[in-house]
Formats: sequence, structure tokens, C-alpha cells
Amino acid sequence: MEYAVRDTVALDEENQALVIIDQTRLPQEEVYLRLDQAGEIVEAIQKLRVRGAPAIGVAAAMGLYVCACRVSESDAACWRTKVRQIGAQISAARPTAVNLSWAVGRMLAVLDGDPGRTIPETLRALHDEACTIRDGDVRTCMQIGENGAALIRDGMAILTHCNAGRLAAVRYGTALAPVYRAAEQGKRIRVFADETRPLLQGARLTAYELSRAGIDVTLLCDNMAASLMAQGRIDAVFVGCDRVAANGDAANKIGTLGVAILAKHFGVPFYVCAPTSTVDLSCPCGEQIVIEQRDPSEVSRMWYAHPMAPEGIRVYNPAFDVTPHELITAMITEKGVCRDYSNLPQLV
Amino acid sequence: MEYAVRDTVALDEENQALVIIDQTRLPQEEVYLRLDQAGEIVEAIQKLRVRGAPAIGVAAAMGLYVCACRVSESDAACWRTKVRQIGAQISAARPTAVNLSWAVGRMLAVLDGDPGRTIPETLRALHDEACTIRDGDVRTCMQIGENGAALIRDGMAILTHCNAGRLAAVRYGTALAPVYRAAEQGKRIRVFADETRPLLQGARLTAYELSRAGIDVTLLCDNMAASLMAQGRIDAVFVGCDRVAANGDAANKIGTLGVAILAKHFGVPFYVCAPTSTVDLSCPCGEQIVIEQRDPSEVSRMWYAHPMAPEGIRVYNPAFDVTPHELITAMITEKGVCRDYSNLPQLV
Repeated sequence: MEYAVRDTVALDEENQALVIIDQTRLPQEEVYLRLDQAGEIVEAIQKLRVRGAPAIGVAAAMGLYVCACRVSESDAACWRTKVRQIGAQISAARPTAVNLSWAVGRMLAVLDGDPGRTIPETLRALHDEACTIRDGDVRTCMQIGENGAALIRDGMAILTHCNAGRLAAVRYGTALAPVYRAAEQGKRIRVFADETRPLLQGARLTAYELSRAGIDVTLLCDNMAASLMAQGRIDAVFVGCDRVAANGDAANKIGTLGVAILAKHFGVPFYVCAPTSTVDLSCPCGEQIVIEQRDPSEVSRMWYAHPMAPEGIRVYNPAFDVTPHELITAMITEKGVCRDYSNLPQLV
Repeated sequence: MEYAVRDTVALDEENQALVIIDQTRLPQEEVYLRLDQAGEIVEAIQKLRVRGAPAIGVAAAMGLYVCACRVSESDAACWRTKVRQIGAQISAARPTAVNLSWAVGRMLAVLDGDPGRTIPETLRALHDEACTIRDGDVRTCMQIGENGAALIRDGMAILTHCNAGRLAAVRYGTALAPVYRAAEQGKRIRVFADETRPLLQGARLTAYELSRAGIDVTLLCDNMAASLMAQGRIDAVFVGCDRVAANGDAANKIGTLGVAILAKHFGVPFYVCAPTSTVDLSCPCGEQIVIEQRDPSEVSRMWYAHPMAPEGIRVYNPAFDVTPHELITAMITEKGVCRDYSNLPQLV
């Protein structure tokens, strides 16, 4: 499988630097950053130049590897200590990003795995581990794509919400993986992208990455999806998710629940694309998922001339909502398509 | 009934000028404009300094009256000709605004109604006609408010979409009239206002006018309404409408249909507030209502730093959607609350 676009996160050709697309400058400018200093990598994660759990994890692993290459220390034990310090520094960039600490943890386990190894041998092992993490993400997304593409017929119009595309991962993404895979299979697909207020990931990222990949994409405000569905212009909805409870309830970007209810009303299949790592069996149902309230200024500011809402107005701004499993036609994972959520624990 | 806020459209104390609140400067600045030149009045209508069908109609009638006062012509026939010319000029300000030409037409009928009248007598009649038009709007809105307030219990939380408040009329408005009236009756009410993308009438106007009137209001992005309803935090939805078909299907600001479907899903009553003048008996059902597509830049521009969507992206931007009557719990008109839409033709 080949793309006209580069991986969101990669090593450069000489394995000397981490190369990421700077998402804060999209969609205006397509700038790839070449990072080989721990400080730069931490800054890129903190400033959301790289975002999306899988992408952050791979960036951290690759970033730690390129930093390790630059540690000029001939004593292996001292070298490892310094690399460990860099790992801690990167891991702390966004403390709540689970994939970040998970990926750094895997790298540090390799670092300390065989004390008898030379520095060059350890570097090789770190390189391989970072690539393994990257390959795992690509494989998972590709498999979600494969499983989801089987549900996409030639000529379908697909609605998506937020960005769960390649920009959130290395390649393919989750919700958009079936779209990319179906396009690779030669199916003609039309995608409608909700702009996704307040932070506009749909307008900024989904519309960008799909049009960049040559996929027919139309942008709409979130409140326009019902109008499209009422005209029979949407054949299926594909969204990603942040966390799935053991019963199949799925937390995802605010607005997902509304789309699911519209899809149910109009008889449009509603698919949630989720790596099985997203399923949290310790969480019995969606009601247990705590929803974070975000800064009111995300809603009241960001307009061109001045704030568009009265100064000091009270704002409701939850980051996520929970879609109950009965509204989810199927959950598409890398291990298969799940329609009976009582089977979810076995699948995971 | 008293308000802390002034009428959206009024004559000044000396009946020498039209006074409007400049809606293009809300919510930042509360500027009242004093207009007594035809050119100024036309500009105010064209630039949406005054907007909303009822408000435009009253502004045109009052504007024509104050302009007529300034025509220095002693011959009554010549004076009438000049006033007629000003009427034509005001009427052409927004050719598609039905209330505008309707109000000017009523004024011109008075102008030409009795050729034997002196200029002062005719001016008095024009003044009275403008006030009659204003009073008719206030009475209609107040009656909608009265009928709607009967459906509001103390402590209710109400969701609204777009702005069908006093800023779209003279006082009270349509969708917000029941809220204002219930508040006057001493009921404690909490309003949740959809921001209403793309043009943000909810954020700019509804949030402004409700907070200005001392009503508890919370702003949310359009895609957050489902999350509120899922928590049982919305007791009723009140919206306005632009046009009602003979079968009760209602066209209103884009996004209304989605809210109606959510309300149905969660068992929340969904009320459409409509002056009977909005009911178009020549239109059998909602499918006959043509929906205007608006400029893509409304969706892709208006952000603070730069456009937030890729250059040249295709955009879906309908101005309205149609809510089928089966999703409308009741239609609240000035003549009563209609729940059986087969009775709508008799009511109108």
C-alpha cells in the first residue's frame, strides 16, 4: 500500500532525527519538522505539533532513540543513565497521555534489558523497538481499515466526526482507515466531515488529510448532518473513540452521541473504529466514564475580529460524550467486527 | 410588563427619529443608533444592523414616518410623491424580506388613503399606522409568550437554537417570548443556547439578549445538546421558524431538525413558536420548501488567525432545514397551541 503523503511520524533516512508534520500549522502550511533534541521533542508533544494517542506514542519511542544516538558517553552504564533521564523527560511531556508513557516504558525496558550489550548494540535494539511500536500501530490501523472497508460499497457517502485519521496515528488512522483502504481497493467514496466544534479537528485535520490523499471530501458544520441524512445522502457513519467500556459504550469527541442518534433515526449504520487497546474492561459501562469539562474560551473565543459571545457568559464545554452501545451498529477492531458487545471481553 | 432593556426598534421621545440597537456591534458594544435619513435607514437594513422579519418591518414603517416628517414641501401632492419615493427606496433595501415591503405597503396605503388630508393630518396617520404595526408585533409575540409560558414549569431548563428573541422583533420575540413571559410570571428558568454555526446567532444574540434581561443562560456548541439531554438536563426545546407548511412541517435555521430528532430520542418536548403569518397554506408540506445554499466562506472563514479549513475545500452550507411535523410536539401561535396539524388551516 502506498500513499502520496508521508507518515505522520517517522525517522529520517539516516535514522538521525524524528520527522513529524507540524499539525499546529495545518491546513495552511505543510511543514515537516526534523527533531533530534529532547527539548524539541517535548515541545512538539506539549504544543500538539504531534497529537493523537498512537502518533504520540510512536513519536516518543522514535524521539528517545534519536536522542540516545546523540548522547556522547563512552561508558555504557553512564550512557544508559543519560538515556533514562531523557526518557523520563519525554514521558513527562503530557502526563495524562497513556500511550506516551507506555511507549517510553517499552523503550526503557529494552535499554535495561541486557546490561551486557554494547552501546551500538543497544542503539540497534532501541531502533528496532521504536520501529516495532510504529509497525504495530500501522498494522492495527491497516487491519481496522481492512475490516471496515469490507462494510463500504462502491459509491458510498460516509460521514465522520472529529479526526481519527492518519494524523492521529502513523498511517491510515482508525475511523478513516476503512475509507483509505476502500479507496485503495478502487471504491469511489465521498466523505462528509463535521467541522467538530469547538476545536475544529474536522475542518483543520480531517478535511486536510482526506483532500491531500485525493479523497472526495465536503466540510459541514456539525448541525448540518441531520439535513444530509434527511435527504438520504449519508450511507454510513465512521467515527473513532477514546475509550470503550466493557459493555460496548464508547466515549468519543463531543458531538458523537448526537450523530449516533441521527444515524439511528434515519437508519444509517453507525460504526465505531477502535483498536482493542481502547477497550477498558475495568470500566463496566459508559456512565462510569468521567467527562472532562474544558476551557470556556474554546467556545467563546477563536473568532476573527473579537469574541462572538458576551463577556463572561457561562459555557458548557465537555470534551467528550458517551454513545451507548445500542446506538452502535458495530465496533470495528483490528481483530474483527463486533456486533454483539457481550462478546467484547473475549475479542479483547 | 416591563423590561430593563429597550425595544429593538422604536421612535425617539420626540417622534423625530428611528432608534435601533446596532446588532452588528453586539455582543461587544450596545450601541443605539438614531436614524432620520432614508439613506441611513436603508443602510441599517442592508448591513443587518436591524434584522429579523418583524423588526425589519417595524423599522421600515417607523423609518418611513420619520423621513416623511423631514420632507419640506408645502404642497400636499408633491409631499406625498416625495414620501412615496422614500417608501420605494426603503422597500428596496432587502428585496427578499417580505415584512419590509408589507410594512411599507401598509404605510403607503395610509399615505394615499385620503387625498383630502393635510400634511400634518397625514403625518399623524402615518405615525399611528407605524405604531399599529409595532403594537401588532408586540401583541403577537406577547400572545405567543403567554401561550408558551403555560407550558413552562418553574425550574425548567430550556434549549433554544439560533435567535428568535426580542432582537428579531420589537419585544419578546417568538421562541424566547415564552421564556420572557414565564420569567415575568416569576418562574425560575435556565436557558441553554446553541451557538448556531455558521453565523453564531445563538452566541452573539441569544446569549446576549437573555443575559441582558437577567435570565440564566449557558452557551454551548451545537454538537453538545445531545450530551445535555442524555443527562436529563433539558426539559423542553423552544425554537422559532421561518416558514410553516400547511401540514405543520417547519423550516427553520439549519440545525433545528437535528435538535428535534434528539428531543424525540430523549422524550423532550419540542415546541415551534410561530406567528400564524408564518404559516404558508399554499405550501402543502416541507418537501416543497426550497432550501437556500449559502456562501462556503461562512463555514471556512471567520476564525481569528486564518481560515481553519483547507483552501478551496468543498462546503455544504444550507441556510435552513425542515423539521417534519411528527417531530414537533406543538406549534405555539398567537392564536393558540396547535398539536393536531390537520387543524392548522382553521387556526390560521
